[in-house]
Amino acid sequence: MDGKKLYHGAAYYPELWDEKVIEEDIRYMKEAGINVIRIGEFAWAKMESIQDQINIDFFVQVIKRFHDEGIETIMCTPTPTPPIWISHDHPERMYVDSEGNTMSHGARQHICTNHPFFRERSLMIVEAIAKAVGKLPGVIGWQIDNEFKCHVSECMCQTCKELWHLWLKEKYKTIDQLNEAWGTEIWSEAYLEFEQVPQPVKTPFLHNASLITAYRQFSREKIVEFLESQVNIIREYSKAPITHNTGRSFDLDNELLFANLDFASFDAYPDSSQYTALLLQYDLFRTMKKGKPFWVMETSTSHNGYLAGHQKNHPTGFLEAEAVSGYAQGAQGFSYWLWRQQRTGCELSHGAVLSAWGKPTVGFKRVMDVSAAIKKMEPMMEETIPLQAEVAITFSDRARSFFLTEPLEGLNYNSLLQNWYDTVLDTGIHRDLIMEGGDLKGYKLLMTPYVPYLSDALRKKGEEFAKQGGIWIVGPMTGYRTEEHTVHRNAALGDLEKTAGVESLYWYPISQTNSVGKAFGTQAPLGHWATVFDPETSNATVIGTVRGGESDGSAFITEKVIGNGKIIMIGAEPIGDKGKLMLSRLIHHYAAETGVQVKTITSNGTIVIPRIAKDGRYRLECAVNMDGKGGVVTVQQIGKDALTGKTILPGQLSLEPYEYRFIKYDI
Amino acid sequence: MDGKKLYHGAAYYPELWDEKVIEEDIRYMKEAGINVIRIGEFAWAKMESIQDQINIDFFVQVIKRFHDEGIETIMCTPTPTPPIWISHDHPERMYVDSEGNTMSHGARQHICTNHPFFRERSLMIVEAIAKAVGKLPGVIGWQIDNEFKCHVSECMCQTCKELWHLWLKEKYKTIDQLNEAWGTEIWSEAYLEFEQVPQPVKTPFLHNASLITAYRQFSREKIVEFLESQVNIIREYSKAPITHNTGRSFDLDNELLFANLDFASFDAYPDSSQYTALLLQYDLFRTMKKGKPFWVMETSTSHNGYLAGHQKNHPTGFLEAEAVSGYAQGAQGFSYWLWRQQRTGCELSHGAVLSAWGKPTVGFKRVMDVSAAIKKMEPMMEETIPLQAEVAITFSDRARSFFLTEPLEGLNYNSLLQNWYDTVLDTGIHRDLIMEGGDLKGYKLLMTPYVPYLSDALRKKGEEFAKQGGIWIVGPMTGYRTEEHTVHRNAALGDLEKTAGVESLYWYPISQTNSVGKAFGTQAPLGHWATVFDPETSNATVIGTVRGGESDGSAFITEKVIGNGKIIMIGAEPIGDKGKLMLSRLIHHYAAETGVQVKTITSNGTIVIPRIAKDGRYRLECAVNMDGKGGVVTVQQIGKDALTGKTILPGQLSLEPYEYRFIKYDI
Amino acid sequence: MDGKKLYHGAAYYPELWDEKVIEEDIRYMKEAGINVIRIGEFAWAKMESIQDQINIDFFVQVIKRFHDEGIETIMCTPTPTPPIWISHDHPERMYVDSEGNTMSHGARQHICTNHPFFRERSLMIVEAIAKAVGKLPGVIGWQIDNEFKCHVSECMCQTCKELWHLWLKEKYKTIDQLNEAWGTEIWSEAYLEFEQVPQPVKTPFLHNASLITAYRQFSREKIVEFLESQVNIIREYSKAPITHNTGRSFDLDNELLFANLDFASFDAYPDSSQYTALLLQYDLFRTMKKGKPFWVMETSTSHNGYLAGHQKNHPTGFLEAEAVSGYAQGAQGFSYWLWRQQRTGCELSHGAVLSAWGKPTVGFKRVMDVSAAIKKMEPMMEETIPLQAEVAITFSDRARSFFLTEPLEGLNYNSLLQNWYDTVLDTGIHRDLIMEGGDLKGYKLLMTPYVPYLSDALRKKGEEFAKQGGIWIVGPMTGYRTEEHTVHRNAALGDLEKTAGVESLYWYPISQTNSVGKAFGTQAPLGHWATVFDPETSNATVIGTVRGGESDGSAFITEKVIGNGKIIMIGAEPIGDKGKLMLSRLIHHYAAETGVQVKTITSNGTIVIPRIAKDGRYRLECAVNMDGKGGVVTVQQIGKDALTGKTILPGQLSLEPYEYRFIKYDI
Repeated sequence: MDGKKLYHGAAYYPELWDEKVIEEDIRYMKEAGINVIRIGEFAWAKMESIQDQINIDFFVQVIKRFHDEGIETIMCTPTPTPPIWISHDHPERMYVDSEGNTMSHGARQHICTNHPFFRERSLMIVEAIAKAVGKLPGVIGWQIDNEFKCHVSECMCQTCKELWHLWLKEKYKTIDQLNEAWGTEIWSEAYLEFEQVPQPVKTPFLHNASLITAYRQFSREKIVEFLESQVNIIREYSKAPITHNTGRSFDLDNELLFANLDFASFDAYPDSSQYTALLLQYDLFRTMKKGKPFWVMETSTSHNGYLAGHQKNHPTGFLEAEAVSGYAQGAQGFSYWLWRQQRTGCELSHGAVLSAWGKPTVGFKRVMDVSAAIKKMEPMMEETIPLQAEVAITFSDRARSFFLTEPLEGLNYNSLLQNWYDTVLDTGIHRDLIMEGGDLKGYKLLMTPYVPYLSDALRKKGEEFAKQGGIWIVGPMTGYRTEEHTVHRNAALGDLEKTAGVESLYWYPISQTNSVGKAFGTQAPLGHWATVFDPETSNATVIGTVRGGESDGSAFITEKVIGNGKIIMIGAEPIGDKGKLMLSRLIHHYAAETGVQVKTITSNGTIVIPRIAKDGRYRLECAVNMDGKGGVVTVQQIGKDALTGKTILPGQLSLEPYEYRFIKYDI
Repeated sequence: MDGKKLYHGAAYYPELWDEKVIEEDIRYMKEAGINVIRIGEFAWAKMESIQDQINIDFFVQVIKRFHDEGIETIMCTPTPTPPIWISHDHPERMYVDSEGNTMSHGARQHICTNHPFFRERSLMIVEAIAKAVGKLPGVIGWQIDNEFKCHVSECMCQTCKELWHLWLKEKYKTIDQLNEAWGTEIWSEAYLEFEQVPQPVKTPFLHNASLITAYRQFSREKIVEFLESQVNIIREYSKAPITHNTGRSFDLDNELLFANLDFASFDAYPDSSQYTALLLQYDLFRTMKKGKPFWVMETSTSHNGYLAGHQKNHPTGFLEAEAVSGYAQGAQGFSYWLWRQQRTGCELSHGAVLSAWGKPTVGFKRVMDVSAAIKKMEPMMEETIPLQAEVAITFSDRARSFFLTEPLEGLNYNSLLQNWYDTVLDTGIHRDLIMEGGDLKGYKLLMTPYVPYLSDALRKKGEEFAKQGGIWIVGPMTGYRTEEHTVHRNAALGDLEKTAGVESLYWYPISQTNSVGKAFGTQAPLGHWATVFDPETSNATVIGTVRGGESDGSAFITEKVIGNGKIIMIGAEPIGDKGKLMLSRLIHHYAAETGVQVKTITSNGTIVIPRIAKDGRYRLECAVNMDGKGGVVTVQQIGKDALTGKTILPGQLSLEPYEYRFIKYDI
Repeated sequence: MDGKKLYHGAAYYPELWDEKVIEEDIRYMKEAGINVIRIGEFAWAKMESIQDQINIDFFVQVIKRFHDEGIETIMCTPTPTPPIWISHDHPERMYVDSEGNTMSHGARQHICTNHPFFRERSLMIVEAIAKAVGKLPGVIGWQIDNEFKCHVSECMCQTCKELWHLWLKEKYKTIDQLNEAWGTEIWSEAYLEFEQVPQPVKTPFLHNASLITAYRQFSREKIVEFLESQVNIIREYSKAPITHNTGRSFDLDNELLFANLDFASFDAYPDSSQYTALLLQYDLFRTMKKGKPFWVMETSTSHNGYLAGHQKNHPTGFLEAEAVSGYAQGAQGFSYWLWRQQRTGCELSHGAVLSAWGKPTVGFKRVMDVSAAIKKMEPMMEETIPLQAEVAITFSDRARSFFLTEPLEGLNYNSLLQNWYDTVLDTGIHRDLIMEGGDLKGYKLLMTPYVPYLSDALRKKGEEFAKQGGIWIVGPMTGYRTEEHTVHRNAALGDLEKTAGVESLYWYPISQTNSVGKAFGTQAPLGHWATVFDPETSNATVIGTVRGGESDGSAFITEKVIGNGKIIMIGAEPIGDKGKLMLSRLIHHYAAETGVQVKTITSNGTIVIPRIAKDGRYRLECAVNMDGKGGVVTVQQIGKDALTGKTILPGQLSLEPYEYRFIKYDI
């Protein structure tokens, strides 16, 4: 992978097309400025149509040919779609859903990825591929499988049942310790042997929260085990970096998943109204493998679609804004799904670059626009790197898992976090999302909202961060569950209370109780579930007070000085427009207090992405209108348009819908 | 059970907590005024963790210890949660739903309560418990199992299939009689042997109504058989009275269920907006075991909750109003679910008195308020008893069963009856709900709405009631089905037509036909399904006439003098606000005509509960504002505030939100 | 079947009632003017209650007796409801749904109609019936089974699996050809043997569109095979014509189904607001067996109903308008479901002529109204025949099947076509719906909307139609899929593009893109999925142009002269009220251009049905108000009221709600 290059790619399925079409495709790719293809992910049957008759030649030839034409390859392992000889007449190898349905061949992800025969055959085909193409110069990277768990969740098959019991044995050693950890005295659940512990299949009501969450964790660890078994083999034969194209809504633990991968990549299918979801992902995956650029591995040229639904078509300009903001935010690759519209299958209506009959699609011109933009921005991207943010927001797939088990009032981690992110985005403060285990170096402000189980490690890291002068904002809805998805024994928030200097009064549903929060000169209704604090006994300054409802007079925001910094607790979330205003003031307040510099003033819907020259001599800002309504950026010092060279004076800089500008500022 | 005492209780699970916690709990219970605990209902695994190793000692000690502290015990049988050694590896013992899903261990009610092994083990554990604690002075009562059928409905397992066939054989003697009763000539359903009769599992369309309703009845009888098998054993070892904590929405026949129980109890989880549903239950369970006080066995201190949902938190005052109105209406016990928040399991978010970490919850102060109220009202409750109502409304779980089989247009018995009840409640007339077999002594007015199958027994009882001078209001939607859930052969309403002196023209959906009813000087749209009467041929006076639609000119309300009383037929329901007005006038009219005295004038949302001194010297009225908006009671004679002794003059008496007053009137 | 007679009938189940009831029924039928009954369709258990003991005598006697009373019989085969001895203990013979649920006895259509044992027994009972009643003079027609696939869809049982493999083998010969046809290289679906091809049962995502659509076709062909096996036997014993009572929403291919039947019939249960759905069916089934009158085999006297739901009751006049318009549109029979309300089963609440207790229902008077109308119109119907329409709209169950597989944005063929039909109806132009294979003789304008797969045969027929002087309007949403439910390889619309002289630019979702179409002096938003055309390269005149959105400037309506006629392409559908106006103008425009004469001017909701004297000497128009609001017809020449003989002058003729008039015009 050429570190200086911006990659502009597309998923490609040469196994579906004949020679003439491939020729045509190469011609159009060059016209469209596509310099990398992603191949192989569903091609197992092409490679091994009959068991043990493995032949990778076709792909070797494709890679060489495209390389000769200046088009590189990301090689994928084809494990999401095992051939019929693996699945036929073997129901015991198939994925079983929580309703007890055994999956059929005919789509993808229908196999249980834990079944030993499947595992064995997977590694065989992966090794054959790695051997055949691992050292080809065209192969610039690898992708393991494709979108793990995008269609399925936790498997309930017999194989998984046995592995579940082994996993539990490994984790709890004795059944008594499991019983103790899960509190299985409740409802006479207590187990005498590990073999008796059920998978979370149908019961008359709900399983024990500990069991459900543990099964999620088991499933998330197993898929990483499968991924890493492939990674290990590939590394024997290839030096090219390895990734997986993940997604935010799949049932995965991304922190674990990427631990042994070389670079981050993800698939994103925002429609034009969902641009902040896209920006959240840029801010998240930029930090996943610190210092290494990420890839947008799949996105649509115009709309996604399948037999039963689709998105609305992108308006002109959106795709370009998506790509430009991506590269500016730290992407090295931006790749479409897909190059040529599927002619058969179940995604006939998905947007593409070329139609199945070989003509440009409605998105083709937009791809050309992206190519033109790349050409302009590539030198700038080479000279600069993204500026590290001073503000970090914790991202936790484990938290998401807890909310899946216990949504309480239909709460969804992704939505909650998105709302929080949007509030931060609108402050104009540059931000990163970082994993629970992420490095805090360089940050001044850390926010950790919506993490029901706050690990000791994270708590201590946050505390240390504050001691060193940072400000750690904890909550809302953080810390009220233990690792085992149970309630703390010592306090509503367990040890966090001591750390943050609070004493909780109640944990309860504050929504619909006419409770109002007052803080930062504003007031707003409080929502969701709250932990309210005793202003008398808490060892922290009350910043926000509850008025009305059942906990009138209690504190919902507190501040505790600790070392050179502070810990801020938000026990209840101010909601609605007024809640957003209050949170916005809170963020501005603490950002100012801790000396956050990297922020800009824009109208909502327009963003500014800060980068810095590798040699440190100038800042480069990329201003992009993302909402398609046009916008305004307040330029605060004299700059220079990096493309035209024209001077830009301080003041209001207008942007047309989806327009972007690169501005250089001397340092 | 001390007849003079008001019990204030909480469900308690000592098996989940250690010694230190139990000590703490006792201390807090005393502070909160809790004088009874309910234990054991989910503790089978604690008592018999390994098959045949039964040990009840822990509970014996708990009962003794709490008794020593002045806290009595309701002992429960633990049959809702069989231990793992009963369920593991025995799918044939598990509950099977109507979709064919076999339940898993891990929640509750996952077993088939008809399976012989489960039945045998249940009786063994019940006998062991009864033997061990049956004569302890602390045990003041028993509860069989817990909320039968709260999570499950009719079981479709193989055991049930065989019992179903036996049940059918018992009921119909020969298969020909079953075929005749169900009219199985239809759709070639006819059976040659009982063994061929299916359970109501998946078919392409719907099963025969007779079969579906019969299966419901089979299931309802079987669970009572199970309950009674436990009752019989306990009676051998204990003199304490026995109950079951039932609920209105469970798939049960409460009349049958309580036939051999000693006192009534139920679980009620109204949020503050659902107070009339609560009042309906007070009016129903007061009469279930006539002359014996009932218990509110479970209610929430603040809100209910489980992993995936919850209610809104009670506003201050609601819990107290709930308790005060309950005791005044005839409750002897008022008990929370639960004492200490669950630390594990799936109900972590349910309201409690104490939190899992041992601190008062948001509901604690409200429980203290209830304790204070009890202290004030207890002497009054001792001196007085609830005044028998003069107006009765038939309650029928069998009717509910018919509506479950045949909702027609999404009709739900509980909602229909609630609306009817609310109309009666708003008239200010004191009322009882009585079971189909309930005693009519002392009533002047009987209403029997929404009973599709009107049994001969009930019909004759109503007729006799009218002959003796009562007024019996029949309908709407009463009498149009036979016992076998078929259509009558002789008339739309079968023999009821002769009894009530009506001749039906049509039974049909009158809703959306622009049909309007006129009666009592009002007019209102007619809704649901109607039986309209021929004004020419009917042997009754027309009181209400249909205008417009497809049965213009027919009668929908008739009146027939019979002996010293009357039978009123309501063939079609007037709906909407105008319909409520018409029904209200109808009720006032016939209540006046039959000399109903016990009624009061209040603003809506405020009620008056009449009681009478045991020695007959005074009346005691308890006025309570239930809707939290405050209200007004029109006092009609000089009374005395029973708590302050102050005179209360006739006129408007205002109540604050959730305020209550006890007023004595000399007789 | 007496060609001169209008039949007025009812479904009748004598097997459910005793002798006395049957006598009563005959008396009432005569009173109500019922002259034909439809019997036997669910009576297999009456005929063969025990295997091999077949006895048809009861039905022979019924047919004779009713014939003696002047009431004829349509005899049905009882195969929708096999007796218990076929289904009991034989799960392998039962229908299995796509979720894997095996159906139970107790309703109907619970058997797999492809199971060999069922097939064998079906043919035996059918032969016995045909032998017994085939030559009775009372039998004027036959109905095979009843509403095939009204409750079920494609069966997934083991028998079907094996037949599916045989069907595929027959169709594709080699597995390679199947793989090629379906493009199974995708997602490694490729099959090595036919036996490996799954049924479209549960997968993690979606099956290949080709497979799903093929399975639908397999299922549709199989049920026709079953039907024809019955037809063949009956023809050996009876000369009476044979039909099946089909419905528009059942999973059938009606064109295939009726190919070897003698006359068309269908079941229609419109409520009074759904009258255009009824009219569509009249216009469709009139042409199904050209020149032969159709039957409305089932309709409700007042409302349909079953345990869980029902329609609103008809207002007075609707039933008469339904019947009169039906006969005028070419019905020979109009028959109710059902004569006597079911006393048992699951359709107790369905409207009928007589109640279960033997009294007239709310619909009885309306049936009498129909009888009176028949008496008046019968001589006119005898002297005249329906006038052939000049405008035809293609109807395609295969198209419906494609939309079921690929709804794209929740698109439903029946709704789409209904909207199109309603637009045509409101133009006042007389129209036929014709099957894909229908004869185009006599038509001047042909419209083919919503046919995703346009067969070569239909394309060539349309082209030839145009060459001969007709105008063929193609689309919207026509032609974008191949026979195998794949995307064309050569162009968005395959060979149609050459035929119609267009070159497609894109096929894409134009809805929500702010694209507006301009044509015929109007403009309207464009919706659904569009194929837009290149105005430069297309070999056709641009009639409508896209403005705005992502394909600004492209064409969406084109016109190509071909021979003496034209082909009009509609690539994108104008939607909303403005879209309806545009389409209305388009239709008027081309109807005028091609010389369409048969049209009338009415207010919406009122229709005029044209007929012509057999001797050609006069036209007869039947004007009916269908919407119950009354309406106006603009009479354009002097006519004569055919019932009163009074002269009708040109000008506005008013009709009361549901009123109808027959007007004669000399030619």
